[in-house]
Amino acid sequence: MHDLVVRNGRVALDGGWAECDIGIDSDRITALGSGLVGRAHIDASGTWVMPGGIDAHCHLDQPNWGGVDTADDFTSGSRAAAFGGTTTIVPFAMPGPGMTALAALDRSLDRANGRSLVDYGLHGVMTQDTGADIKAQTERLAVRGVPSVKLFMTYTGFAVSDDLMLRVMDAAHEAGAVVMVHAENDAAIRRTTARLAASDRTGFRYHAVAHAEILEREATHRAITLAEVTGARLVIVHVSGHQAADEVRRGQMRGIDVVAETCPQYLLLTAADLASAPDEAARFIFTPPPRSRAGQAALWDGLADGLIGLWSSDHSPYRLSDKLPADRPPSFLTAANGVPGLETRLPILFSEGLVTNRLTLSRYLALAGGEAARLYGLDRKGRIAPGFDADLVLWNPDRRWQVRAAEQQSAVDFSPFEGLWLTGRPRDVLLRGRLIVSNGVLHDANPGGRFLSRMSGVPRHRHPLEETTPWLDG
Amino acid sequence: MHDLVVRNGRVALDGGWAECDIGIDSDRITALGSGLVGRAHIDASGTWVMPGGIDAHCHLDQPNWGGVDTADDFTSGSRAAAFGGTTTIVPFAMPGPGMTALAALDRSLDRANGRSLVDYGLHGVMTQDTGADIKAQTERLAVRGVPSVKLFMTYTGFAVSDDLMLRVMDAAHEAGAVVMVHAENDAAIRRTTARLAASDRTGFRYHAVAHAEILEREATHRAITLAEVTGARLVIVHVSGHQAADEVRRGQMRGIDVVAETCPQYLLLTAADLASAPDEAARFIFTPPPRSRAGQAALWDGLADGLIGLWSSDHSPYRLSDKLPADRPPSFLTAANGVPGLETRLPILFSEGLVTNRLTLSRYLALAGGEAARLYGLDRKGRIAPGFDADLVLWNPDRRWQVRAAEQQSAVDFSPFEGLWLTGRPRDVLLRGRLIVSNGVLHDANPGGRFLSRMSGVPRHRHPLEETTPWLDG
Amino acid sequence: MHDLVVRNGRVALDGGWAECDIGIDSDRITALGSGLVGRAHIDASGTWVMPGGIDAHCHLDQPNWGGVDTADDFTSGSRAAAFGGTTTIVPFAMPGPGMTALAALDRSLDRANGRSLVDYGLHGVMTQDTGADIKAQTERLAVRGVPSVKLFMTYTGFAVSDDLMLRVMDAAHEAGAVVMVHAENDAAIRRTTARLAASDRTGFRYHAVAHAEILEREATHRAITLAEVTGARLVIVHVSGHQAADEVRRGQMRGIDVVAETCPQYLLLTAADLASAPDEAARFIFTPPPRSRAGQAALWDGLADGLIGLWSSDHSPYRLSDKLPADRPPSFLTAANGVPGLETRLPILFSEGLVTNRLTLSRYLALAGGEAARLYGLDRKGRIAPGFDADLVLWNPDRRWQVRAAEQQSAVDFSPFEGLWLTGRPRDVLLRGRLIVSNGVLHDANPGGRFLSRMSGVPRHRHPLEETTPWLDG
Amino acid sequence: MHDLVVRNGRVALDGGWAECDIGIDSDRITALGSGLVGRAHIDASGTWVMPGGIDAHCHLDQPNWGGVDTADDFTSGSRAAAFGGTTTIVPFAMPGPGMTALAALDRSLDRANGRSLVDYGLHGVMTQDTGADIKAQTERLAVRGVPSVKLFMTYTGFAVSDDLMLRVMDAAHEAGAVVMVHAENDAAIRRTTARLAASDRTGFRYHAVAHAEILEREATHRAITLAEVTGARLVIVHVSGHQAADEVRRGQMRGIDVVAETCPQYLLLTAADLASAPDEAARFIFTPPPRSRAGQAALWDGLADGLIGLWSSDHSPYRLSDKLPADRPPSFLTAANGVPGLETRLPILFSEGLVTNRLTLSRYLALAGGEAARLYGLDRKGRIAPGFDADLVLWNPDRRWQVRAAEQQSAVDFSPFEGLWLTGRPRDVLLRGRLIVSNGVLHDANPGGRFLSRMSGVPRHRHPLEETTPWLDG
Repeated sequence: MHDLVVRNGRVALDGGWAECDIGIDSDRITALGSGLVGRAHIDASGTWVMPGGIDAHCHLDQPNWGGVDTADDFTSGSRAAAFGGTTTIVPFAMPGPGMTALAALDRSLDRANGRSLVDYGLHGVMTQDTGADIKAQTERLAVRGVPSVKLFMTYTGFAVSDDLMLRVMDAAHEAGAVVMVHAENDAAIRRTTARLAASDRTGFRYHAVAHAEILEREATHRAITLAEVTGARLVIVHVSGHQAADEVRRGQMRGIDVVAETCPQYLLLTAADLASAPDEAARFIFTPPPRSRAGQAALWDGLADGLIGLWSSDHSPYRLSDKLPADRPPSFLTAANGVPGLETRLPILFSEGLVTNRLTLSRYLALAGGEAARLYGLDRKGRIAPGFDADLVLWNPDRRWQVRAAEQQSAVDFSPFEGLWLTGRPRDVLLRGRLIVSNGVLHDANPGGRFLSRMSGVPRHRHPLEETTPWLDG
Repeated sequence: MHDLVVRNGRVALDGGWAECDIGIDSDRITALGSGLVGRAHIDASGTWVMPGGIDAHCHLDQPNWGGVDTADDFTSGSRAAAFGGTTTIVPFAMPGPGMTALAALDRSLDRANGRSLVDYGLHGVMTQDTGADIKAQTERLAVRGVPSVKLFMTYTGFAVSDDLMLRVMDAAHEAGAVVMVHAENDAAIRRTTARLAASDRTGFRYHAVAHAEILEREATHRAITLAEVTGARLVIVHVSGHQAADEVRRGQMRGIDVVAETCPQYLLLTAADLASAPDEAARFIFTPPPRSRAGQAALWDGLADGLIGLWSSDHSPYRLSDKLPADRPPSFLTAANGVPGLETRLPILFSEGLVTNRLTLSRYLALAGGEAARLYGLDRKGRIAPGFDADLVLWNPDRRWQVRAAEQQSAVDFSPFEGLWLTGRPRDVLLRGRLIVSNGVLHDANPGGRFLSRMSGVPRHRHPLEETTPWLDG
Repeated sequence: MHDLVVRNGRVALDGGWAECDIGIDSDRITALGSGLVGRAHIDASGTWVMPGGIDAHCHLDQPNWGGVDTADDFTSGSRAAAFGGTTTIVPFAMPGPGMTALAALDRSLDRANGRSLVDYGLHGVMTQDTGADIKAQTERLAVRGVPSVKLFMTYTGFAVSDDLMLRVMDAAHEAGAVVMVHAENDAAIRRTTARLAASDRTGFRYHAVAHAEILEREATHRAITLAEVTGARLVIVHVSGHQAADEVRRGQMRGIDVVAETCPQYLLLTAADLASAPDEAARFIFTPPPRSRAGQAALWDGLADGLIGLWSSDHSPYRLSDKLPADRPPSFLTAANGVPGLETRLPILFSEGLVTNRLTLSRYLALAGGEAARLYGLDRKGRIAPGFDADLVLWNPDRRWQVRAAEQQSAVDFSPFEGLWLTGRPRDVLLRGRLIVSNGVLHDANPGGRFLSRMSGVPRHRHPLEETTPWLDG
Repeated sequence: MHDLVVRNGRVALDGGWAECDIGIDSDRITALGSGLVGRAHIDASGTWVMPGGIDAHCHLDQPNWGGVDTADDFTSGSRAAAFGGTTTIVPFAMPGPGMTALAALDRSLDRANGRSLVDYGLHGVMTQDTGADIKAQTERLAVRGVPSVKLFMTYTGFAVSDDLMLRVMDAAHEAGAVVMVHAENDAAIRRTTARLAASDRTGFRYHAVAHAEILEREATHRAITLAEVTGARLVIVHVSGHQAADEVRRGQMRGIDVVAETCPQYLLLTAADLASAPDEAARFIFTPPPRSRAGQAALWDGLADGLIGLWSSDHSPYRLSDKLPADRPPSFLTAANGVPGLETRLPILFSEGLVTNRLTLSRYLALAGGEAARLYGLDRKGRIAPGFDADLVLWNPDRRWQVRAAEQQSAVDFSPFEGLWLTGRPRDVLLRGRLIVSNGVLHDANPGGRFLSRMSGVPRHRHPLEETTPWLDG
């Protein structure tokens, strides 16, 4: 007699579909089988029962660096996640100016506390100008359940030098933490932006010129090489096209412990969209910018063959008015940078990846959250198996629907995917055995999401450079 | 109350380990969970519970083409499989001279009937000289549960022309069958063999010269191109090194539906072994021959990253006396060609792949049998999940042991791996819920293996060449 | 005091331009320098003085295999060459049905004798069905100044088996001869042609389907592998796109002695042209067919970087009425196969390669004839240097003109390049110091061309496979 | 009647050998031909007559940055060049601390004036800490005949930031100058060196660890990307192995204007040599350090196929006592960095490249100096052709000799190639028609070398990034 049984669904086990019941006791899955009996049950007939998704790259309730406020806090952001079939989020504990990573962690824990509908972890962030002890901060983050640190190679106030990146990587390698890198060559972006500005080429389309794909390729290769030096585990976040993807593949083939992440916007948009009319193009301002059709094909290949291990939203909740203020001409120099995506991330993967057969079920599950769980130390999330948290999503696989910002949970007033037709939508969502979305409407508004203290990674052991003996190969 | 519960084991689910019980009713797995109750139980404490393996490339009780007899029939061969943790085998229904594929199927069904300890399917085989209607034979094979046809590109009496291969592929594409190809360039082998023979270079080491790796590369590329022409699903069997593996990878990257298979002997031996003393080297005469250390590294990479989908034994049971007759000098021209492997296939993968961390659990399971099940249409085999056959192997993961031909089940009197130390060995083996090996000894000698009528494949739909429109790409 | 001095030109020496005079005595260049004095002189002011071109792939006065006659004999063909800046041609000594290569050589020598305006060599051709002694024929050809043998892998009556190709390559390796191969997979062409014919898809556009690029890739890789087995020097003729080109590059990177040839039609036309109206498309029926824009880019890269060593016309002089007979619907099955090109080959390279800076002067000279001279043993041809034959072409580099079949020397009544605008045209042409074309008109109609007995090649020494010891690499 | 005729030699023209005389009037070659008559003559019978070599990467008479003095000034250095068959050198105008590139040019011109036995150009050098106007300095350098600027990505006081490199590249692109880059990742070298020092691993072998090949790969890719951004022509100097070479090849395949240079030490030594006894290993301390045998194979391939365009010595004349001081333990941290090579550069290429047939004559001539002349604007150097300077070297091609530092012209007291046997040695050397070395001894000690004001390059026009329109490719 289980506490709850989800009956009659088509269940997505790791390696394939099974027609079976799922027995749940307290907050865990305790049985998979036929004819299970429970004190309560949910009839999953006609649905596909899948593990709750994990979105490991999103921005919620961040400090304002003198620009604009994030539109979503943990309340609206976590609702967007849940409605999109995602039951675990890992936003960044973003520091304000001069703030250390640990102080930023305290701030974000405080903002999240008692507000999130879904479970959440946090990533640390280090910037160039903090005077903090890198090694100590990294260790403390890991001890506090945050064994992941993000670095930016560009953006004023954020961009880290190679020196700093090496120090963070050395510390992360020792602490068993993962290093996440936004990879673009800062000097070349500043040079080219200045040249464009000097010749009055500041329309949205020039965003793709200033942040050219070759600059992402350069920084990606550099970050991977520094990981090769230090032995650190590395994630290249929001890989936008084939050039950075190729660098990750080259690194993987050398045996480097590097994982690529990409986002829906890179699969659905191209640089040509930035050449639309300004009020249209404003919806596509994010960084790195969208690229080419050829790059999209390469990314689909990488999603399918495992080159790309993470599918995230990079949800960056800024309002359209912050991108295209009424009182200024359109300019990529001043537009708020980023688009929402928590609610559409997984339905897009479902519709464009799984339904189309571009992805096997196994790859879909890895990208929906299985790989993020493994990589970031979420040891009870991401799979339907005995012992795992009963985070379940019952999808209506045939439902045809259209993305409409006005109907979404996020406080952001637009979507880059407005009007997109999708197939398949979450019907019911369970968080640790508790129904939070039912029949597509909020069932339990109680913000019962918990902070997930993550395990420090035990990466495949790679030695740092100085412990190798290349001269013996001569 | 299940018929049987396997308790307290560490269970290899598709996507990772779980500590759970397995409920079995009749011949199927019906539940995974904790605290399951059964009328009977097996205590799996301290073991790793894994799906029974599938060996989809082996030779048993074959017709004698004027050479030597196969040492193993279905009785001894299936016992070797079971003791090695393999509960499904798919030998070839090999025709005798002039015999059609369907006649050979009847012959093999008759030989297998009532003799096999484990379940078995059969592959069809077509040779150049049969006058049969290719299309009709292929369709009938599929209807009779044999949706796979093997072709040899070399060997007198077997080697098929490009014309014939195209006809078989066209027929297989239509029938939803898989084409398996032994890929070596026949003309170049005959030329080089003749030159070697003419200069009295016939020692075992010259086997690796006559069957040079570049000839396998050539034929592999050719077979893949013909699959590209016809749209057929293709398996390149016993890929021996990086050259053929690279061709398969190139094909996969073009989107061709091609899968590589390799065997333990290619990972553990090299051409240098053929230069040992003749009584040693005789144990390494098989085709294609073993290659280089660099090739082994490439094959491990391919096993790990999915390039190679199948891990088979190519069990070819000939006695050492048929390789090195007492009354003749050692000669690669006349030595019986092939080595045994049914019993060592899976323990080698366990020890050298899983224990060493070269392979993730997911890749191990795919190679142990999961991928063979998917590819060859064994829809109830290869996974531990509700609804699947209760073919289970309880491995003692710490057991250190040494391969000894004298202690094995096969009637063959040698092993190419004699003396090899391995870690991990099957303790108990269940076939459809029935214990057949217990504590490493035969528990139930009753030959309860059944013929498995396999489903015709539903390959990813590829169009044949003539349905494409290349001129629009200009 | 030289017999003749060409003064004041800009002279194309091998490594760069020089402003110098050229002194000529008898039929040779004897001096390069300033202020040279001669008994006669030609004023080259305003012209570019370049070595006479070499077209090493063309068809003249061939036997009729039951189809149509070649429109050009050595008289009209050699005039076309001369007007196009080519002073050496190497047509094929094509056998009639059942004719040996040596008999065909006698036939072609007879047809050429006393008719050619320019110097000529001949290539041997071997077909599948001749019963001749391959080794003896190859040696005799080499002794008679014909150290090159062409093989076809497709075409009824011509297509050679792998066995025969190996025998020719072994013989050529011993005789120091080059093997030229038309590489397409015959079986797949026949299969696909039959399927197209069975469904009434025989319009010209289907020529590109039947002769798909992947079939050229397959045969190219196979021929290169057989060269790897035998150690023979190999030319892959008329490489049509990137797929075959990539195979040649892979072979070169393995150290195989293989050279690629391409032709103007593959750089200027694509498969899309075959979808034009039939009377237009008929002008583009040749084999292999034209391919894609992407392939053209790859071929230009290969011409520029040395992957492709030979630039030939594949001049195949059939009339338009033999391609599109008035009494039959357009059909790729029956259209005469081939286009003229002797007169346009070099001007196209000049205009599209040199003038556009796609090619350096050094690469231009190699492709115009320098590499053909080196490869095929024309030791006094292809360069402007003391001791070389005084075959000189004075180009008017600025001349803009349009290709018009009606204005050309060939007896063929169309050009695939009709209407193409080109920059640069030969003004004067000297053969061994004698002016044959002057100011763009025939100056000396006397057919003074001589048969060039070529040196047997001394290829970079490659051992055949059986002399290597791969097992030591293990 | 020429001033001088070199008779009866085997002359290396750009595209092949010719048996001809060379007529010289004043300082130029005026005729190539047979039977030339002169007021004087040199009998070249039995010799190979080749253009004087160009060494475009060497260090002479440099400022002391607080370390050790360069042992060679222009007197001894230029003699070493001449005896090694090199008649043009292009050393660096290296600045002292705080010195601008123009001031350094004045200093080097002064040091060279009246001292050099051979002709010389100079390269500019820019460092991070000069406050000078980058654009103005680059333009002035070009105007003064120095259209090439070198940047270091590592070394304290030298290492330039990406910002500075972009500014230099933008300026060079405008001025038609070439940018030369020493490519290694500085931050990673400092990190690893500190870790090695902290653990007392400072023996010579650790030089290869601190300056690992992957760091050269990283910086090479970065520099090439910045060239892609700016459109600048780039030379990657002293490419040491396959990793950096692969980056250059990737760049060239993308169409970037980048050339690789390598040096004899990378073809003859490996990192294993640094593990020799300290007094032996000290002779191999240079940066980047030597690498692997596999890298050497890749470099030979690159020299042969054109990937590598420049063969330089990187002559850095420090004494053995500055590498291994008597009063200190061996340490890669303090050893003077660099080895001599002006005298051995060309004989090594002759013996190891030309005599062995690894290189064609054409590639040998390009590497000996032809490509340096083209790239660096030495328009009258590097070829034997009418109008070119009569810089000629008559090589005794059969002479076997052994490298002995004690017998060389350089003031350096060791050679990294001590004891190496070579085939072929310069017999006579002419500089602009004047004999300076005769029969292997100094013929005319008069320092008649002139400063060569070089032409600003006219590189293949590449647009900077901001002039491209990538969004149209979407």
